[in-house]
Amino acid sequence: MPQAEPLLLELFAIFVWAKVFGEIFEQLGLPAVVGEILAGVVLGPYALKLVNPSSTTLSVAGLGAIFLLFTVGLETSPRELIRVGRTSLGISLAGVMAPFLLGFAYLRLLRGDPAHQAIFVAAAMVATSVGIAARVMADLRVLHTRVANLILAAAVADDILGMIVLAVVAGLGASAGAQWLQLGVLSLEAVAFTVFMVFFGSKVIHKMRPGVERLSTHNAPLILALALCLGLSVAAERIGMAAIIGAFFAGLAFAEYSAEWRLAPRVSAINEFLAPFFFFTMGSRLDLSVFQPDVIVACVVVTLLALIGKVVACGLPVLREGWLSALKVGVGMTPRGEVALIVALVGLQTRMISQAAYGIVVFMTAATTLIAPPVLRYLFKRDAAAEGSS
Amino acid sequence: MPQAEPLLLELFAIFVWAKVFGEIFEQLGLPAVVGEILAGVVLGPYALKLVNPSSTTLSVAGLGAIFLLFTVGLETSPRELIRVGRTSLGISLAGVMAPFLLGFAYLRLLRGDPAHQAIFVAAAMVATSVGIAARVMADLRVLHTRVANLILAAAVADDILGMIVLAVVAGLGASAGAQWLQLGVLSLEAVAFTVFMVFFGSKVIHKMRPGVERLSTHNAPLILALALCLGLSVAAERIGMAAIIGAFFAGLAFAEYSAEWRLAPRVSAINEFLAPFFFFTMGSRLDLSVFQPDVIVACVVVTLLALIGKVVACGLPVLREGWLSALKVGVGMTPRGEVALIVALVGLQTRMISQAAYGIVVFMTAATTLIAPPVLRYLFKRDAAAEGSS
Repeated sequence: MPQAEPLLLELFAIFVWAKVFGEIFEQLGLPAVVGEILAGVVLGPYALKLVNPSSTTLSVAGLGAIFLLFTVGLETSPRELIRVGRTSLGISLAGVMAPFLLGFAYLRLLRGDPAHQAIFVAAAMVATSVGIAARVMADLRVLHTRVANLILAAAVADDILGMIVLAVVAGLGASAGAQWLQLGVLSLEAVAFTVFMVFFGSKVIHKMRPGVERLSTHNAPLILALALCLGLSVAAERIGMAAIIGAFFAGLAFAEYSAEWRLAPRVSAINEFLAPFFFFTMGSRLDLSVFQPDVIVACVVVTLLALIGKVVACGLPVLREGWLSALKVGVGMTPRGEVALIVALVGLQTRMISQAAYGIVVFMTAATTLIAPPVLRYLFKRDAAAEGSS
Repeated sequence: MPQAEPLLLELFAIFVWAKVFGEIFEQLGLPAVVGEILAGVVLGPYALKLVNPSSTTLSVAGLGAIFLLFTVGLETSPRELIRVGRTSLGISLAGVMAPFLLGFAYLRLLRGDPAHQAIFVAAAMVATSVGIAARVMADLRVLHTRVANLILAAAVADDILGMIVLAVVAGLGASAGAQWLQLGVLSLEAVAFTVFMVFFGSKVIHKMRPGVERLSTHNAPLILALALCLGLSVAAERIGMAAIIGAFFAGLAFAEYSAEWRLAPRVSAINEFLAPFFFFTMGSRLDLSVFQPDVIVACVVVTLLALIGKVVACGLPVLREGWLSALKVGVGMTPRGEVALIVALVGLQTRMISQAAYGIVVFMTAATTLIAPPVLRYLFKRDAAAEGSS
């Protein structure tokens, strides 16, 4: 189709560059996702100007964000979550509140940012990326330890809390200002949506199961999952939340059946194709000229607060199990990921945050993702023998 | 991402309607793909006007066409193809030439269509859709019979011949007129590309294999396959062919490793998500007002020629094995599919064919796809016992 050529060339260039940067990062022992973002920064319109994503590519990247969160949801078992001990929930709640309050206080009180911008950046500091810590612990073969279980369960609870926070701040963005009544309605909506999907989502799928298996359509469960992913994304936006929240809960509803219907490997293939466009375009939106001395200071301070907030707040509930365990859990909870980036993107698109604040969030996300793995590796190796027997 | 909402809603509506129509067709024992096209016709801008695909959706549909042909390529083993007996190649060659010549003669000589339009419609009559016949024979559990092997091998050879024909006519479209020198260059390019990819494509992948398996990138073979799919699509367009030809040959290059690297199920998941947008938008482009009496006559005649051309030309080489076998092979080769639709789409986009001619191709594709399965089922059941022992 002749007129599609520039689009195909653009998609090809983005896909290959993102993957090349990702591979280089992997070879250096760094998370590939930071490489994919860096590819966008380096090749994008604010640096080498080799690739300037078109509006169609940005739409494809938006689909990438939806499938990213759909995959996260699919890997989050709500039953596991309900079963999770109070410790994990405590870690998660403390780890959500501390960075938010620290970030908001610094940006609003010390830096004097507008309230809505401080809220958005603080919200981006909230959600742990479960993927990074899980990958490191899988590499070290310590996924079976109590510390690993605590980290994973808390990171999963974090995803849910992060979704609620995102729902509220995205709603703020859409209504272009903090109106208390609306904020209350949105919070209630977000909590209701969450409670419904966590407790009843998979029950609904369970009820539909015999019907789905009677359908003649090829791969009916996958088709139903994809339809629900798109449908709940639309629904989430309709009630004033972000599309990815719907996608996440759609994934959550199917999580119990992911193995039986072999959904995870197939949805993750769609993800493998679309996600690089998301990470690359996130990087390509980063205006490098915003990194003036005062913004660089803010980047470093926000990153430090994001690290300290998680390490202290997530470590404290585990302190009675020894400071090393507490430290491992705390560090394991520090890497931020796609949720932080999406909060920043929603803020940028709704003009609730400046280019500089967007830069701060991208910096914080990349820095926490880069710092956590080597520290975690060091802590786990420090007494691998002692921990292995627990 | 607030501004993406209309797009998500549109994608959701198209996906669900395409699948609902597909499911209804399946329940009626008809091919789902015809249902998905019909969904586009019924809900599209020329009938109920409920969904009017945006340019972004058309781009997503274009990606759907690329993955459709990439999947077809992945399922086509070049080694199998080279090994195929002369019978299959004879069936395929005869079955490509006969409908093309019959179609061109009717449209150019009897109807008086312009030469380029007659060439495009005739080219759309060429390629058998391997999927429909394979599905019917799999349902009847006769895939192991000699007749089934002949049909599948010939349909696969057909794909390659269809690609060459499409390459040449798409080049014609791009150069906006039939210039003999250019036509010669294009034909040579198409044949050279085909020969290279069939004979050397998988050898190149074989050479790259140790390197690919050393890569740290998660799912490296899938990433490489996706990159090659996009890259060869761009390359094919650059040298004046259609993007999907590149995608098809990229699939062909990986076909030998599809099982080992578990590419087929994962690429087909991407396909399950994107293909409905392709079929729906194909239907939505169909202007129903073109079906005036003379066009309806042309639809019926072209469909009959498409059927007779294949049945006679593909049946003749098998006639010495009995008229029933010949008839089965002939009927098995009649359904047209995505290649016919893409030829028509390229023609419509490059203004080489009229809306009416586009309507004729869509009608012919749907009709042959609907007619073949019940006839094939009848012929196979007619002497299931006798055939089962051969």
